[in-house]
Amino acid sequence: MKSYLDCIPCFFEQALRAGRIATDDEQVLKQLMDELGKRLHQISLDNTPPETGRLIYRIVREITGNSDPFQELKHQSTREALALYPSLKRTIEESDDSLLTAIRIAIAGNVIDFGASATFDIETAIKEALENDFAICDYSAFKDKLAETEEILYIGDNAGETVFDRLLIEQMNKPVTYVVREKPVINDATIEDAVQAGIDQVATIVSSGTDAPGAVLNTCSPEFREMLNQSTFTIAKGQGNYEGLSSEDYSIFFLLKAKCQIIANDIGVIKGDIILKGMNTGT
Amino acid sequence: MKSYLDCIPCFFEQALRAGRIATDDEQVLKQLMDELGKRLHQISLDNTPPETGRLIYRIVREITGNSDPFQELKHQSTREALALYPSLKRTIEESDDSLLTAIRIAIAGNVIDFGASATFDIETAIKEALENDFAICDYSAFKDKLAETEEILYIGDNAGETVFDRLLIEQMNKPVTYVVREKPVINDATIEDAVQAGIDQVATIVSSGTDAPGAVLNTCSPEFREMLNQSTFTIAKGQGNYEGLSSEDYSIFFLLKAKCQIIANDIGVIKGDIILKGMNTGT
Repeated sequence: MKSYLDCIPCFFEQALRAGRIATDDEQVLKQLMDELGKRLHQISLDNTPPETGRLIYRIVREITGNSDPFQELKHQSTREALALYPSLKRTIEESDDSLLTAIRIAIAGNVIDFGASATFDIETAIKEALENDFAICDYSAFKDKLAETEEILYIGDNAGETVFDRLLIEQMNKPVTYVVREKPVINDATIEDAVQAGIDQVATIVSSGTDAPGAVLNTCSPEFREMLNQSTFTIAKGQGNYEGLSSEDYSIFFLLKAKCQIIANDIGVIKGDIILKGMNTGT
Repeated sequence: MKSYLDCIPCFFEQALRAGRIATDDEQVLKQLMDELGKRLHQISLDNTPPETGRLIYRIVREITGNSDPFQELKHQSTREALALYPSLKRTIEESDDSLLTAIRIAIAGNVIDFGASATFDIETAIKEALENDFAICDYSAFKDKLAETEEILYIGDNAGETVFDRLLIEQMNKPVTYVVREKPVINDATIEDAVQAGIDQVATIVSSGTDAPGAVLNTCSPEFREMLNQSTFTIAKGQGNYEGLSSEDYSIFFLLKAKCQIIANDIGVIKGDIILKGMNTGT
């Protein structure tokens, strides 16, 4: 997905939000805004938003001198999600369609996104994801493809959300390769965050090679791109991965909550909707 | 009121909103964003938001080549407000406290603000202003000062809102000098807009000399500043005038709706609240 003009004010909001996690020095934060302003002409609308996110968080690191401002918040999100794990596991096991319930819960976890907002309410997100209708629900194709495949490529998104992914991975009951970001960017999950969530107990964790907050292919490693080429069943979580991959030719199931108006418009849904969308999956 | 870091993303939103009124050429709009980005380091947080608004709309004019993109929207707002005039006049005359009702209606008119939002609902704003409690209501001091004064200085805000101001001016029943902006900026009222609203029938219209979307004193004419110095009863409408004048030493009654979170925080109210706030008025 390319960027839209309306993404530009949001880039400044994102930079400010991330900057504020790193410092409360107003002068440094103003300098951060100014630096993004200066480089704005280098940001093409043909770039995907996570490509620009990558640049923004580089500027945040550069100006604030903090290489991972979200580290503690990420650990905290994972701890909080792990505390919910037993009751969510029970909800899945007791439901009529455990796979669909696990998908709903995995999407609920996508609300843990400090790139999209400074605050979120995970309990409400779970309740909504369990009760609300999907705006797009390619569940039938998802089940068919899952039954056929021998292994799963699962492109993760944020720390904490990883725990919700683990529940879906356990439910799918096939060998999974779980993909994380190479370097810290916003609260996106790295290997460390995936391990904290216990993903190493249910999947093989690999890095996509990128430091963008989404699978932006030209910033990913050749090994990851080859995996994507070879994959017979791919799941991509969250907005950043949707933005990075939605214009590519791969067969992918996107699981996300449309947290911003621009993405909602791009997909043709309403902000806040939950989505299970198959791309090039024969749906 | 100084600017806050959170105003910065909003500056880009405002520029984009104004730019889109002037052109739908995406490349020109991107150029507008880039130009604002380049000049961001020149914008100090010590500036009031309307000082920056002035710069933004200069860039909009410069990049789009359109010196008054809001002209037609302003005429339309005034026509729509004039259509409401008879029924609003009746509402005021039939109410128990006609002056307070006229104040409420004048504040409702403040919702006609293309700087704060691309859309608004005047009917809902009127209903809310007539029914909701004031968050700050220095009405008693307002009445006392009004009874004492021999003339009124009324600093207007937006085109269309002018019609609502006219209703309050008629109700106060004292000689009024009505102040407008010198040059078009956003949908702020100029002499032409005030005349279209019929203000010339109830007040003397003067220009403040500014092309900022608010009474930013160092951009106003010496004549206007002298009027403000001499005034025994001053009303200032809207956010832009509040932002421009709230750190000055004059005695002023501000009538506004807090349409943005930053101003709401600055005043100590909730976004959407209606306010009649006396500054240095002995309240």
